[in-house]
Formats: sequence, C-alpha cells, structure tokens
Amino acid sequence: MNSAVPSGLLLSARRAIAYSSIVLPSCRLAAVPSARILCPKTLNEIYDPTINTPHHDLNRKYSSVSSYDRPRSHILVDTMAPKEKVSFNLKTPKGTKDWSGSDALLRDRIFTTIASVFKRHGGMALDTPVFELREILAGKYGEDSKLIYDLQDQGGEICSLRYDLTVPFARWLAMNPDVRSMKRYHIAKVYRRDQPAVNKGRMREFYQCDFDIAGTFDPMVPDAEVLRIVAEVFEELGWDGRYTIKINHRKILDGVFEVCGVPQDKIRPISSAVDKLDKMPWADVRKEMVEDKGLDGAVADKIETYVMQKGARDLLEKLLKDETLTANASAKAGLDDMALLMEYLDAFGVLDKISFDMSLARGLDYYTGVIYEIVTEGSAPAVDSNATEVKTLQKSGKKEKSKKSTNLDEDDRSNDPTVGVGSVAAGGRYDNLVGMFLSKAQIPCVGVSFGVDRIFSITKARLEREKSADALRSSEVDVYVMAFGGKGFNGLLKERMDICKKLWSAGIKAEFSYKIKPKLPAQFKAAEQASVPFAVILGDDELAAGKVKIKELGLEEGHPEKEGVLVDLTSLIPEVKARLARKNSGTSTDSEAVAGLAQKLEGVDVKADTTAKTADAGI
Amino acid sequence: MNSAVPSGLLLSARRAIAYSSIVLPSCRLAAVPSARILCPKTLNEIYDPTINTPHHDLNRKYSSVSSYDRPRSHILVDTMAPKEKVSFNLKTPKGTKDWSGSDALLRDRIFTTIASVFKRHGGMALDTPVFELREILAGKYGEDSKLIYDLQDQGGEICSLRYDLTVPFARWLAMNPDVRSMKRYHIAKVYRRDQPAVNKGRMREFYQCDFDIAGTFDPMVPDAEVLRIVAEVFEELGWDGRYTIKINHRKILDGVFEVCGVPQDKIRPISSAVDKLDKMPWADVRKEMVEDKGLDGAVADKIETYVMQKGARDLLEKLLKDETLTANASAKAGLDDMALLMEYLDAFGVLDKISFDMSLARGLDYYTGVIYEIVTEGSAPAVDSNATEVKTLQKSGKKEKSKKSTNLDEDDRSNDPTVGVGSVAAGGRYDNLVGMFLSKAQIPCVGVSFGVDRIFSITKARLEREKSADALRSSEVDVYVMAFGGKGFNGLLKERMDICKKLWSAGIKAEFSYKIKPKLPAQFKAAEQASVPFAVILGDDELAAGKVKIKELGLEEGHPEKEGVLVDLTSLIPEVKARLARKNSGTSTDSEAVAGLAQKLEGVDVKADTTAKTADAGI
Repeated sequence: MNSAVPSGLLLSARRAIAYSSIVLPSCRLAAVPSARILCPKTLNEIYDPTINTPHHDLNRKYSSVSSYDRPRSHILVDTMAPKEKVSFNLKTPKGTKDWSGSDALLRDRIFTTIASVFKRHGGMALDTPVFELREILAGKYGEDSKLIYDLQDQGGEICSLRYDLTVPFARWLAMNPDVRSMKRYHIAKVYRRDQPAVNKGRMREFYQCDFDIAGTFDPMVPDAEVLRIVAEVFEELGWDGRYTIKINHRKILDGVFEVCGVPQDKIRPISSAVDKLDKMPWADVRKEMVEDKGLDGAVADKIETYVMQKGARDLLEKLLKDETLTANASAKAGLDDMALLMEYLDAFGVLDKISFDMSLARGLDYYTGVIYEIVTEGSAPAVDSNATEVKTLQKSGKKEKSKKSTNLDEDDRSNDPTVGVGSVAAGGRYDNLVGMFLSKAQIPCVGVSFGVDRIFSITKARLEREKSADALRSSEVDVYVMAFGGKGFNGLLKERMDICKKLWSAGIKAEFSYKIKPKLPAQFKAAEQASVPFAVILGDDELAAGKVKIKELGLEEGHPEKEGVLVDLTSLIPEVKARLARKNSGTSTDSEAVAGLAQKLEGVDVKADTTAKTADAGI
Repeated sequence: MNSAVPSGLLLSARRAIAYSSIVLPSCRLAAVPSARILCPKTLNEIYDPTINTPHHDLNRKYSSVSSYDRPRSHILVDTMAPKEKVSFNLKTPKGTKDWSGSDALLRDRIFTTIASVFKRHGGMALDTPVFELREILAGKYGEDSKLIYDLQDQGGEICSLRYDLTVPFARWLAMNPDVRSMKRYHIAKVYRRDQPAVNKGRMREFYQCDFDIAGTFDPMVPDAEVLRIVAEVFEELGWDGRYTIKINHRKILDGVFEVCGVPQDKIRPISSAVDKLDKMPWADVRKEMVEDKGLDGAVADKIETYVMQKGARDLLEKLLKDETLTANASAKAGLDDMALLMEYLDAFGVLDKISFDMSLARGLDYYTGVIYEIVTEGSAPAVDSNATEVKTLQKSGKKEKSKKSTNLDEDDRSNDPTVGVGSVAAGGRYDNLVGMFLSKAQIPCVGVSFGVDRIFSITKARLEREKSADALRSSEVDVYVMAFGGKGFNGLLKERMDICKKLWSAGIKAEFSYKIKPKLPAQFKAAEQASVPFAVILGDDELAAGKVKIKELGLEEGHPEKEGVLVDLTSLIPEVKARLARKNSGTSTDSEAVAGLAQKLEGVDVKADTTAKTADAGI
C-alpha cells in the first residue's frame, strides 16, 4: 500500500470535514484525521486553488478516526472485505434527504393538489434541465449568487445547478421567440448551498412549484390571477384562511427611498436591509443602514415612518393622500398599480387574504413591480437572536439534537429556535429578466413559487400532533392474494400468480407472498402491515370447486362478511371491483384521494411553533 | 477592458469548443476562437490538470467569431447595454433539452401510465437527492464511471450527480437497516456525460422509471413479477406485443466463459465484448477479444458456439442437455434459475414476450443473476458502421443536419444512422450491491428501469407520422370566458373575473383575456388556438337579464346548439359541468385521458427506422 503523503495536504484536511475515513477498492480516497476546529470557510481561505490533486493521488490511509471527529449524524461503515478495509460515510449530502413511505405520499398529494390548481388556470407544463450554462445564472441573484452549486469542469461546458425555476423560464422565453405569451407551470427541484434546517423544510435541495404568466397585457390583470392562484392552492390544501399574503410594490419602495433621500446607489442595499424587518427589530435594521451601509441617520428615521406601516385599502388611501410621496413618479406609478390590483383582487374574492406590508422588499434583484410573500404563523417572527435566553436555547438545542436526532448534520439548524420555516410561497413581477437574455424579446412576467418542502413540514408536524399521520398509507395495494391448506399443501404459488395476473389485467392493485409455501398468519400480517383492505384467499378444496374467498380485512365482529364470502372464480373481478367501489366511495381511488386531501387537511391547524423565527432564503 | 492573455490558454482553447463568445458583466468569461479540428479528448490529453484557472481570470474578449466557429445550434445574442456589450450562448447544456407543450404532456402521460402499473404492484415511492457523495457512486459502474458528472469542490462534501437510480436505492437500503424488504419505484432524472443523440432520446440528462424488489424470497418469484411489470407497462402504452424482452443470466454466461477456458481475470472484459454483439458482427467482437483483450483465438471460437444462440424453452432444454456446461456449477445454477423463471413467466402470461438471448451481457458490474433488456425494432441492429455506404450516410447526415436541425449540437448524433434508440428498458438481479455499502445488510434485489425519453421518441415519431400529434393539447382548459358588446362596451373585465372565480371554485379549468376591452374575434381565436372546447360569453343585455351564453366551439353547421344556449347565471356551473361530462365521456378528464392513452397509442406502430443501430449506453 502506497503511504506517500498526499501532495494536496491542505485539500485533504479540508475534505476531512466531510469524510472521516474512506478507502475504496476502485478509486482510493483517504483523508487525514479531521481537524477539530477548522471550519470550511477558514480552510477555504488557506486552500490553494491551483493544487487540484486528483483523488487517486490521495491514497494515504488512516485506520483510526477519533470518535469526536466522526460526524455523529453518519452511519460509519467498516466492512472487512477479504483484501481491504472499506469504509463509507453512509449518508445523503448535507442539506438533502431521501423521501419515502407516507412522507413521499403526502408530498406527492401536495404536488397533485398544486398542479391541479395550475392546470385549472390554463398552465402549460415546462421542464428544463437541472443545470444551466453558468453564464445564464450569472448576475441574476445579487448577493445570493454565492449559494449556487457549480459543476466541475470536466472538459466541456461550464455549468451550474439551477437556483430557481424563474431564470430558466426567462431563458426559455428568450430562446423561443415565437412565444410572446404563456402561462407555464414547473414543479421541480432547485439547489442552494445555504445553511440547512432539515426538519423545518429548509434544504439545499428542495422542490419549487412555480406558476408564471408571461406576456404584455393590461396592467395588474395577470398579477391578480396569480394571487387568486395562491389563495386557491392554500384553500385546497385545507389551510382555510390560516395564511397571509403580504404584498408590496418595488416602485412604491423605490419611491419611498427617493423621497426620504436615499442616494441612488444605495437603494438596493437599503432595500435589502428593509427586507430583514421580518427577522430583526427596526433598531437592528437601522443600525445596519447607518453603520454598515453609511446611510444618514435622519434618512433612516424618515424611512421608518413609511416601512413600518401595514394595512389594506386603508393604508393605500392614506398613502395616496401623501402629497410628498405621490409627487414622486415611481411611488405614484406603484400606488396606482396597487389600487388597480386591489380592485381586481376584490373581484377574484381574495382581498381579505391580503396584507399591504411596506416592509416587504424581497431579496432577488429581478423584481420590478408587485412583490408578495405568503406566511403562516409557522413562518413567523418574534425570537430576537440577540437575546441571551435565545443563545442559551440555541446551545441546549444543539446538545439535545446530538442526542436525539442522529440523522441531522452537525450544523443543521432544525432545532435552532431563531430559525423558522420562512415564507411558504413568494413571487412578484419581473419585467426585465427575459430582456437580460435577449433585449429584443422584452417579455414582462409575473409569477409565484410555492415552497413545497416547507408546506410539507408544517402540514406533517400538525398531522403528527393530531395523530392523523397513520391515515396515510405508504402503498396503495387493494388486494392481497393468499393461500392456505392442510397437510400436503404446496403453497399454490402458480395459482396465486394466476389470480394476481387476472387482477392486474383488470387494473386492480394486488400483491402476494414471494414464498413458495407461506403460512397463513404471515400472509395476514403482511396484508395488515400494509393496510391492504381486501384478501383473496385460495384453498385446494375451494379451487377444485371453482371458488375463491374474498375477505374484507378489519371488519368488526358480527359483520355478515366478517368470515369472507366464497365467490365463483369466474366472477372474481366484478366481485372485487364492486367491493372496492363500495369501500372507496370515501377516499381511496387516486383522484378521490387527492380530492379528499383538502378534507383531511381541513382539520389541520397550520399554526406552528411560536419559537420559530422567519427567514426567507428558501424561496 | 483587460486584454491580457489568459494564463490557462490550453484550458481556454478547450472551453472554446463549447462556447463561442461570452462576456458577462458580473462574471466575465471569454474564449479564444475555437480550434476547428481539436476534439475534447485530444485536448484533454494535453490539458495540465494542475492549472485550474478561475473563470474571472479568463477575461480576454474577442469581439468577432467566425461563422464556422459559432455553434450553429445556438442563438448567439448581442445586446447593446449602455455600458457594455453582453453576449450569451442562449442554449441548454449539451445533451439536455427543455420539454414544453404537447411533448411535455405526452411524456407526463407516459409517466402516469408507468407509475400506475408500479402502484398496481404495490410499489412505494422513493425520492433521493440528485447528487450523492462521490464515494457512494465510486466502483459501481465499471468502465462507465468516466461518464459521471462531478460537482465542483466548493468547500464542503465531494459530490457527483447520480448516474442511475439503482445505486441510490441500494445506499438507501443500507442506511435503513429496519427495512429488510421493499418494493420501491422511483421516477427521476439521471446524468451521464455520454455522446448525445437528442432526437433519438439519447440524452445526458434523462428520466428513468425504476421498479425494484428488495428482500430475501424464494428464487425467481420477484424476478418473474418484475418481467410481468415490463409487459404490463408496454401493453398499457399500446405497444401491443411489438417489443421483445431479451433475457440471460450472469451465472450462465460466467459458466460458459469458464467452460470455454476464459481465464478468471478476463471474464468481465470478455463479457463486455460479448455485450457488443447487438451493435457489431461476431467477427468484430472476436477481433476485440483476441487482439485487444489477448484471448486465445480457439477460446473465442468456442464462445461463439454458445453466445450466438437465441431461443426460448427449446434453447434452455438444449443447454440443460449439454453435459460440459451443466458440469459447471455456475452454469448449472443459472440454468436452474432460468427454468424456474420460465415456469413463473408462463403463470404470469408473459412467456411469449421473452427471447432467451445468450449474447446479452449488460455493461454494469453489479448484476449477479438474471439480466434483461427490452428492445423494439427502433432499438435495433443492422447497419455496419464500417461499411462505406454508412460512412457516406453519416457524412451526408451531418450536412443535412446543419441545414435542417438548427437546434442540435454540432456533435449530436441524432442523424447518424449507426446510432439507434437503444434499449427502452433494462434491468436484472443484483444481490451484492447493498452489501457493498453495509456487509451485514446483504439484501438481494431485482429490478427494471424504463428509459422514458426513448419510449417518448419512438412514440412521438410514430404519432407524427400518423398525424395524430394534434390530438394532444398543451393545456387542458375547458372554458374560455369572453365578453362582447356594442357602443360603450367597457369590456366587462370584473364580470369576466367574477365568472372565472365561480368556475375555478367549482374546479372547472377556465381562462379569460387579460385585456380590459378585448375584441370578440380575438377571444374566439385565443380559445380556438388552445383547443378550448367551451366558451362562456357575457354581454351587457344578457347580464342585465341574469343570463349568460354557453357555446360549444367547433360544432358543425345545423347543430341545435351551434349558436350557443342562454342559461341562468345561477345555473351556470351545473350547465357547464353537464356539458363537460357529456363531451368528456370520451377522453378528456385527467384520469380518463390517461386511461385513453393506451387506446390512442394502440394504433401506433412502434417499428422505427431500420437504419438505426442499437447501443445501450442510456440505461
């Protein structure tokens, strides 16, 4: 075994944070014992990017790793292969997770609900590649661009993982000049190298469900329909009014800043500071403006008088009477838009869901008009990260986590009370983004993005608290085909296969034991564990008489069919179908299950931990 | 503007193959004019990997690029921004594409069909991250590992994009030791840096639809169910027998190689050579064995007598009588498995779809038992890439392409007659893969993966040839809400909004014009373009009388409702619903559309170009 010290030692040390001890037969990787204090940032600074040692050069092997250095969240595997010791970090990458069982099913139902609203409004599906040429994404996300995942240069094009679905949509519009208007929806994963909080749905890989309307239309009409879609989605998810659509307008904000005397070059940075008002008190935001961003204190104080205001039509009317403000062209245009929008929202029946919130600014650079963010009480404010009791909580939260949640990364913030679920949907108007790709194809757009992982987290937490989670099965099988017999019983495998074949051919979801001679109790247990509602039971005598038994599982004592009913083999399919239809007249077919989701979730209170604090990095 | 020559000039030259001229304000990139003859492979060889120049160092700018050097497939954009010239390559990365309109809808329907079969067999959904820790993928794919996409090291874990869905499933099983058996399905994109042929569905980013059964069961029972699933999927897609399930067994192959005298260390390389028999004549494969892989010519000739055989039960019986072969333990075990499998396939009614093909070897390392590949005549064999007429065809194909298909990459192989669609599904048994992650969790598995992009390409080509593509709409809107009026007509915008609100609340898919005062012909045109079946028409007089008109579009002259019917506003919803139900008793609701897909595709002949040649890199 070659034990030369790797040429890229600093590199190895940096990698050791992620790996503990890795030696693979086909592609040897090794790491020096990981340093206790070094954080990736620090190491990045001392890392020399010109040393790009290929992995197969790093074949120094360390057989022992201290228990401290080994990430607690990982299953570290040592398998003794005949020739060589093989060790893996058996985990998903930081900030990502697997979805399975009832979680996957619940999330799928959320997707289906959202997609059905999108289609109801004429949305057309668009699917784009998960990575884009890097220059497509460059210059679109402001400060957040540092969170973009890059693909390695392997001798072709330079690409990055998509950061959202909006920029790829704009790129698509620019590439398809025949399309001048479109309602498109896109449900797909996006990628951000942010600090994760897995249990709160703050992930590095997460789903967005986007609906956007592109095209030149009369003002605020598509904007109003997008907000109607927002309301329909949350109503159909059963949130029943327990959400708020915060709206504001970039032109109003810009007008306010101009009127207050913010220099032109400081408008975007000051806007970013204002956007933090859902996470910090005004005093902290003012401090950032004055101390970090060099704004005159008097100007900051003027800004306060505007941005702390919230309301609805009343606030709009008040602002329209503010002659200083309406003398500013940008503010006036924004206020006129807002007046029209509120009229249309009234016609669409969603005005009562709206909060006109002048502190809403949105981080992304590309918005140009109305902006919105949808929050629930789970998204929400209130814990001051500077308060000493919070620091104590954060610490104890960390300790508790390392004991309890072995599946979380060391620096996951799921148990940090200053981190909230954040907004569950957000969006706005972006009239210049398509033009950034193709100036002659200046197509104005407006849209919204739903953060499904967050919606899922809030929904699931509530379902668990209400113990209704067990109502969601992880598979949808309707019939378990079993066999039983006495002495000389051969298991009837091919007969079970034949019955399954007939059920499948009739579109009925069915399964059977893969054992040649399964025991009857084991078959019943398997059916019950998967909550399969019906058993079809084969026996030698019954088959000889051309009969088979159908038994509904879980019937109460005394039910006339408690012991099952014998039916002719020839009428098995219609008999099973009739019973399924009767049973499922509630919620069990695919489409009915989806329709029933709202009903099921209806009882779910979407209030979440009041200890949670909002942050909007996820959307 | 800094015009220093980039320090990594060779690197730039290499990048120039992908880019022509790229200068971004926020992240400047430039390239030297691309070399005409250099191919990436050649450049890779002279590229010094220790020079890893960051992009912002490559800021030399070329303002003119010769028309030859500019990739024909790209829209090259020059926007004159006030300060700086901005140029983009407006395209998706090589080997990837956008999906929209009726293509996206047709593909979605294929997904739905496949997923419904998976659920019918008790499949549970699993979703894993698009990237994995690199060491999870290492050592799993043999020679193909070079096709894995790596993420850039940005100071965290070292990750790669998933290459298939099988290894992530095995990783998940190893991480979830409580799960000892499972039927899981997974429909998601995978990534391979292969040479693309976009129009034939050979992509770098493509979907796989996987179904796998994990667990220790009686032999060949789950294997048989997987093949039953294969048959159900293609039957429901309407392929109606126009496909072949080629099967073989790794143990039979290994036994054959042993019996013929292949040294142990040459078994996998020789197996790889045999796997090319669907693309090359035996003479070429023999040459590879003898000249490239150093096999004794006499041994190769013995191999020929076995691997050129195809058949069904007859072939199995013949082999079972071959005493040299059955004396080999591996071959005997494989043949016994195969005999049992055929019995079960008979019970499942799929034996007639099977071809026992001794030349099938499959490229991936991890298979240990039965292996299979599903081909159609579009996958298929026959053009010898060495024949001179083929070389002419390839050349003329390239020329033709550059004129016609402006959306293809320069080196896309869509029009190369020696490239076929390849197999449309493939899989097999892999009993040791989970154990590679966790030796104590040795869970045997068997599964199959459907290549949806290829299935889509074959289906679409046929639909287009039969001009049935227009039957597939790109949105599913059922009602277009319009208004008309004479002098003083105000457009009835809010009234249209109100009607839409009512339709949406009733779950009806509806849209309206975003113009304040749209013209009636324009509204009809929009409805017709989107093939919306019904119009709801508002007029001042009718509204005053509490009435509204419903008009079915596209009715023939003389139909009693040709001019539409006036209904009470209060009964609009039930009146619309009744008409929709009548209209859709055919195929128009979501679930019915899916169910009707098979019917629609039934008439589709899946034979594809006989000029196509198979290759199995995609699955």
